[in-house]
Amino acid sequence: MNLILLLEEDFLHSDRVCLSGRRYEHIVNIHRAAVGDKLRVGLLNGLIGHGRVLSLNSDELEMETFLDRQPPEPLPVTLLLALPRPKMLRRILQSITAMGVKEIYLINSYRVDKSFWNSPLLQPEKLQEQLILGLEQSCDTVLPQVYLRPRFKPFVEDELPDISSGTTAYVAHPGMGVDCPRNLHAPASLAIGPEGGFIPYEVEKLQSCSFIPINLGERILRVETAVPVLLSRFI
Amino acid sequence: MNLILLLEEDFLHSDRVCLSGRRYEHIVNIHRAAVGDKLRVGLLNGLIGHGRVLSLNSDELEMETFLDRQPPEPLPVTLLLALPRPKMLRRILQSITAMGVKEIYLINSYRVDKSFWNSPLLQPEKLQEQLILGLEQSCDTVLPQVYLRPRFKPFVEDELPDISSGTTAYVAHPGMGVDCPRNLHAPASLAIGPEGGFIPYEVEKLQSCSFIPINLGERILRVETAVPVLLSRFI
Repeated sequence: MNLILLLEEDFLHSDRVCLSGRRYEHIVNIHRAAVGDKLRVGLLNGLIGHGRVLSLNSDELEMETFLDRQPPEPLPVTLLLALPRPKMLRRILQSITAMGVKEIYLINSYRVDKSFWNSPLLQPEKLQEQLILGLEQSCDTVLPQVYLRPRFKPFVEDELPDISSGTTAYVAHPGMGVDCPRNLHAPASLAIGPEGGFIPYEVEKLQSCSFIPINLGERILRVETAVPVLLSRFI
Repeated sequence: MNLILLLEEDFLHSDRVCLSGRRYEHIVNIHRAAVGDKLRVGLLNGLIGHGRVLSLNSDELEMETFLDRQPPEPLPVTLLLALPRPKMLRRILQSITAMGVKEIYLINSYRVDKSFWNSPLLQPEKLQEQLILGLEQSCDTVLPQVYLRPRFKPFVEDELPDISSGTTAYVAHPGMGVDCPRNLHAPASLAIGPEGGFIPYEVEKLQSCSFIPINLGERILRVETAVPVLLSRFI
């Protein structure tokens, strides 16, 4: 928790918050903060700045807040990710969020196990927990949007042309296409398949939406590694 | 397991292997291979190619092997990584290996918990298990070397000048130095601190060995994310 994320409902006045629970525990036990200490804070979907501890008791604390800076620029990438297995999804969502992606489509693919779509982790409040952890890690405040698209074909045919419009679109696929470009800054759409990759039909469908196949060389990486490696080219 | 890694002792003749145990299970249960099927194989620290299944019984199989290609080029990076917590270390070693790093120094830092150095995972055969998983994932055969350096100061003063000699040396440190360069290909040494970062004394010691501070922008990433993001610049 490199930044304490504040919610509207934490505010007692315009510049004073009361915190309890997880954030209180973290401030007291990890930061070992005392009255007068300054901590980095930010308002969810708002400005960042610092908070000064005014009072502490056994289960809550008050801070005076000074919010005066914009959060970091978003990464200009719309990510289409074949739904990973739930255990992986948790970590991957945190790292995607920490890297600044703001639009995340979790999509189906032939090699996505159908049972993954029934995971309790896909409930909105469970997804949000992971996104919040990513924001707290990376000192950002802007919550990504996560969209679930459990049907590949209608998604690609009906929605994807609008989503990828105005972006350069890439599909990462081992052994296909060109080397992943470096130093990308223009708005992009980036599709990443499941372990084992998209099947040829899926790659063709994405290509028909102007997605350019790119690869990361001879080595085949796990999705959890490929995601930060690919996003690194946009930082 | 995108490549079945073969050991010298698996060979019955110069081009025939017998496999049992973990690799047998994988070939039978995951690949669902039958007699005649071809699989990608490689000899540990040797050539890669394919194997053709000659026979299968209830607990072992024989393959004819054709090894005719060099493994992928190594990544020209010597990595100095503050020892992560054991749970993370497992995954990080796999991803570092999958990305092609061949020289890994696990080093101490003020913010490395002393107990991490007692982890059973640091036993050579346990480390090797993780490296093997990384090679099997990425279709490589060349085992990285892992060196444990539980004392920071003597390592930096006595060994590091020789290790980093002839390379461009970087220390990744949030909020310090220049933006991490892109498109790096020259031999490099790369130092990555623990969660919370190196302390100023440690950064200064590395700078005195000509390490250049670099950062990845405003966002602070977890080590497990920062490692592939930084290594991506060398692919």
